[in-house]
Amino acid sequence: MQLISATLVQQVIQPRPTASYKGNYGRILIVGGNARFGGAAILSASAAVYAGGGLVSVATDAVNRDALHARLPEAMIIPYDDANLADLLQSMTVIVIGPGLGTDETALKVLNTVFEAVAPEQTLIIDGSAITLVATHHMRLPKARFIWTPHQMEWQRLSGIAIAAQTPAANQAAAAKLPGTVIVKSHRSEIFTPTRSYQNPVGSPAMATGGSGDTLTGIIAAFVGQFGHRDASILAAVYTHSAVADLIASDHYVALPSMVIQALPGYMAKMAAASAND
Amino acid sequence: MQLISATLVQQVIQPRPTASYKGNYGRILIVGGNARFGGAAILSASAAVYAGGGLVSVATDAVNRDALHARLPEAMIIPYDDANLADLLQSMTVIVIGPGLGTDETALKVLNTVFEAVAPEQTLIIDGSAITLVATHHMRLPKARFIWTPHQMEWQRLSGIAIAAQTPAANQAAAAKLPGTVIVKSHRSEIFTPTRSYQNPVGSPAMATGGSGDTLTGIIAAFVGQFGHRDASILAAVYTHSAVADLIASDHYVALPSMVIQALPGYMAKMAAASAND
Amino acid sequence: MQLISATLVQQVIQPRPTASYKGNYGRILIVGGNARFGGAAILSASAAVYAGGGLVSVATDAVNRDALHARLPEAMIIPYDDANLADLLQSMTVIVIGPGLGTDETALKVLNTVFEAVAPEQTLIIDGSAITLVATHHMRLPKARFIWTPHQMEWQRLSGIAIAAQTPAANQAAAAKLPGTVIVKSHRSEIFTPTRSYQNPVGSPAMATGGSGDTLTGIIAAFVGQFGHRDASILAAVYTHSAVADLIASDHYVALPSMVIQALPGYMAKMAAASAND
Amino acid sequence: MQLISATLVQQVIQPRPTASYKGNYGRILIVGGNARFGGAAILSASAAVYAGGGLVSVATDAVNRDALHARLPEAMIIPYDDANLADLLQSMTVIVIGPGLGTDETALKVLNTVFEAVAPEQTLIIDGSAITLVATHHMRLPKARFIWTPHQMEWQRLSGIAIAAQTPAANQAAAAKLPGTVIVKSHRSEIFTPTRSYQNPVGSPAMATGGSGDTLTGIIAAFVGQFGHRDASILAAVYTHSAVADLIASDHYVALPSMVIQALPGYMAKMAAASAND
Repeated sequence: MQLISATLVQQVIQPRPTASYKGNYGRILIVGGNARFGGAAILSASAAVYAGGGLVSVATDAVNRDALHARLPEAMIIPYDDANLADLLQSMTVIVIGPGLGTDETALKVLNTVFEAVAPEQTLIIDGSAITLVATHHMRLPKARFIWTPHQMEWQRLSGIAIAAQTPAANQAAAAKLPGTVIVKSHRSEIFTPTRSYQNPVGSPAMATGGSGDTLTGIIAAFVGQFGHRDASILAAVYTHSAVADLIASDHYVALPSMVIQALPGYMAKMAAASAND
Repeated sequence: MQLISATLVQQVIQPRPTASYKGNYGRILIVGGNARFGGAAILSASAAVYAGGGLVSVATDAVNRDALHARLPEAMIIPYDDANLADLLQSMTVIVIGPGLGTDETALKVLNTVFEAVAPEQTLIIDGSAITLVATHHMRLPKARFIWTPHQMEWQRLSGIAIAAQTPAANQAAAAKLPGTVIVKSHRSEIFTPTRSYQNPVGSPAMATGGSGDTLTGIIAAFVGQFGHRDASILAAVYTHSAVADLIASDHYVALPSMVIQALPGYMAKMAAASAND
Repeated sequence: MQLISATLVQQVIQPRPTASYKGNYGRILIVGGNARFGGAAILSASAAVYAGGGLVSVATDAVNRDALHARLPEAMIIPYDDANLADLLQSMTVIVIGPGLGTDETALKVLNTVFEAVAPEQTLIIDGSAITLVATHHMRLPKARFIWTPHQMEWQRLSGIAIAAQTPAANQAAAAKLPGTVIVKSHRSEIFTPTRSYQNPVGSPAMATGGSGDTLTGIIAAFVGQFGHRDASILAAVYTHSAVADLIASDHYVALPSMVIQALPGYMAKMAAASAND
Repeated sequence: MQLISATLVQQVIQPRPTASYKGNYGRILIVGGNARFGGAAILSASAAVYAGGGLVSVATDAVNRDALHARLPEAMIIPYDDANLADLLQSMTVIVIGPGLGTDETALKVLNTVFEAVAPEQTLIIDGSAITLVATHHMRLPKARFIWTPHQMEWQRLSGIAIAAQTPAANQAAAAKLPGTVIVKSHRSEIFTPTRSYQNPVGSPAMATGGSGDTLTGIIAAFVGQFGHRDASILAAVYTHSAVADLIASDHYVALPSMVIQALPGYMAKMAAASAND
């Protein structure tokens, strides 16, 4: 397994070209947040905005509108059972589905709407309960550019490999059967592309707190939206999430998602400056 | 085209006279924010408050009340379909219409209410979907002191000039056919008064993120409300928006609207001090 | 007129005795905030909490619950049309009525409920639209320890003295006909007790922004709640509000209520330390 | 009585093992927050998250959803009258019941649901109105690992000892009749285990403000969730709450719960570093 390096991150986070506008940095839709887990969608969307995503929308249970806007007026909202969701999906660069989605009938229906609307050139990040739904219902996958972000238990459900047996080789073989890229999250997350595998060398147990995974999905979405759908963007996103948390953990016992999100623009500016100095 | 200068900004942002009260600094109404785009109205209103507007109210979809007050208790709110909106409009110095308004029937009705109520001495800032509505419906314009803030696509809709053909000369000619001032937003925004044209020399691609335009409308409203409706106020507002974002972008990869808004009072204090030292 | 001094403030804001509990620092109820002006009640309550009030509750339109708790979880809430309001009123040390109350029938009914429930030993701060209601409806005043906080137009309504004729002597004479203390707010606010008059020497036009008056009511409530109902507490509250705003205005063009509120505990600590060093 | 020491706190707050995940740091449920006292549950949950609790959920009146998520997207929510509450309770490590719960029929019903669902190995922190309910209704206690957090009046209700008679010996005797640990809160809180008694040597009257007790419950929950249910965890939580408030009080007249909560991760990092340096 190759370790992701800070150098790679600096190669990805380039200074922005002067003549650019928000449409150049991705149209991102976060699909998730039921009545119980609304915070997950808010964190994912917040990470997407603070990591530089151009235009961020959230499809969620309507009960989450107030809290989303109170925290993040930069985002737009559509109830995930709105008849216009399918249309909105088609205008997106990157779609995240899963943070706080749950696994009930509504969640399944929303996931089906996404699977029906998604187009081959769109990035589709499958996270959390959406992974469980795919695994449990043996759902047929649409054509899209997939990124899977299971934690170890979700990976067991999806791959059939018990946690204890999740060796790099086994994971690689299972990942190769899925379309796209798989990120198996743990204290040292592993990333599997169809042909290669990587490990994240940074991060700490200060990230072991609710909402970390949701935050990661937003960062990946923003990086793909800005820097293109390529392995380097995904790897840089995983590294950035942990590197920012490490900075916070140097003087905080926990690196809460809200703190990580706030610190993203500063870290990315440093990486872009290092990039420009090369 | 003349470049806007920091000196102009310092001439506009004067120290306040000691014996003054909030009524001296403008009564501002932001009209916008439907159920999907409520954040846009919140950002516009926040910018108006932080840029020093005396009294700021928001006419919006009632679903946005909680988030507005949670972020900005300094503002007042009225549902934009409230029968009292017409009365409220008449007490205003500056009206912004457009941020997050949308283009549906409700939006059109609200825009018509504003057009019917506005008086010749009031400033009317037309932004975003309100520009699209005017262009699409060939709406007849009321007497008012207009400021238009289209981005390039909206300017195409309004002026009929394709983006590629939006040269300064073409823009100037088209702007002259509209009442008031036109700000064509791009990475180097151009401002057209009936007889002159200006370009904004500051700003960066760190501003290429959702909500930047909404923030600009609030700053313009506050500047006109405080410093009077004159070219200098409008030009200083455009410059201030970008200059504050540049300060943030010196160590942040994105200059999010929320960050720009927070930094407005500090920047304006520096300009006022420079002004006082002349 | 005697000028309020920083020394007086230091005499009022004493270090707290070690063996004390929240009940020693006042039970404060803010009554106000209709569906349009909810922010006013939020600002008043926030000021009361940050200025050290022991227990702060808000009686307001129920639509303001979410925003209040999102900003200020330290406060409690009761809808102002709740049948239990009268009971709750009786347990209070200080009652503020007026911030964002409005002047409609609901407002009048709430004001009547307060007037019927208030007891002679309770402090009753009458602000904003509550002043207008008292003046317009020639309401009969209950026995209570009154503090009136009109701005100049409200003072005209209440006293019958036109703004241009509001000389210290005229104000003093009119104030003497009202029970309690009158604070006539202007850029140099005047405070009239039954026998003396004072002027606030600090403050700046950076405070000329919506919500300043609401903030003042909360500070007065907290000071009376903690330091007792006496002239010095009221004077120190007026001075503190402006002195904190002056600190902020040294590097901010506007001293927004939210900023003033946040800075209260720091300023008060400095005054208490100065007091302890005497 | 033995004084709790900073050394004990350092022994408890250990650096986290590298290979750990959020499930290692406790599943915590805060049960409380009716329509009037929602802020109490928000503060308790916020303290639990910021003190490092792995996964924090809140069972509360549904009206508190927006404010909870707006402040704390890291937490999950379930209405406390939801039929799934009993199931959710069974998955928890630590349950707090009481902050802002009230004493009406709904509160009693919720408390009964908790008492029926709780298992012997679960920690059950009984606070505020839940203590009053237990005392008033002479409720039969389930098997669980209890922690009681009465203030002196609640302790009088629960123990039958009048405040003036609450000597350490009397308290110890009464505490021994209750299962678990009792924390009698005052300006120098006392902690009674079945066989020993401790006193908290830190804290100041700057903590004498609404919400302090709610904050303490969240810290205890997080400490038990992370560091295990043992006396040292509980003692360290009590000390940490006050020590953090003392840091804030060094330059703030009041140490508001929101401030204490924000400062928890920094303080805990210092303690963990001191621990690692031993």
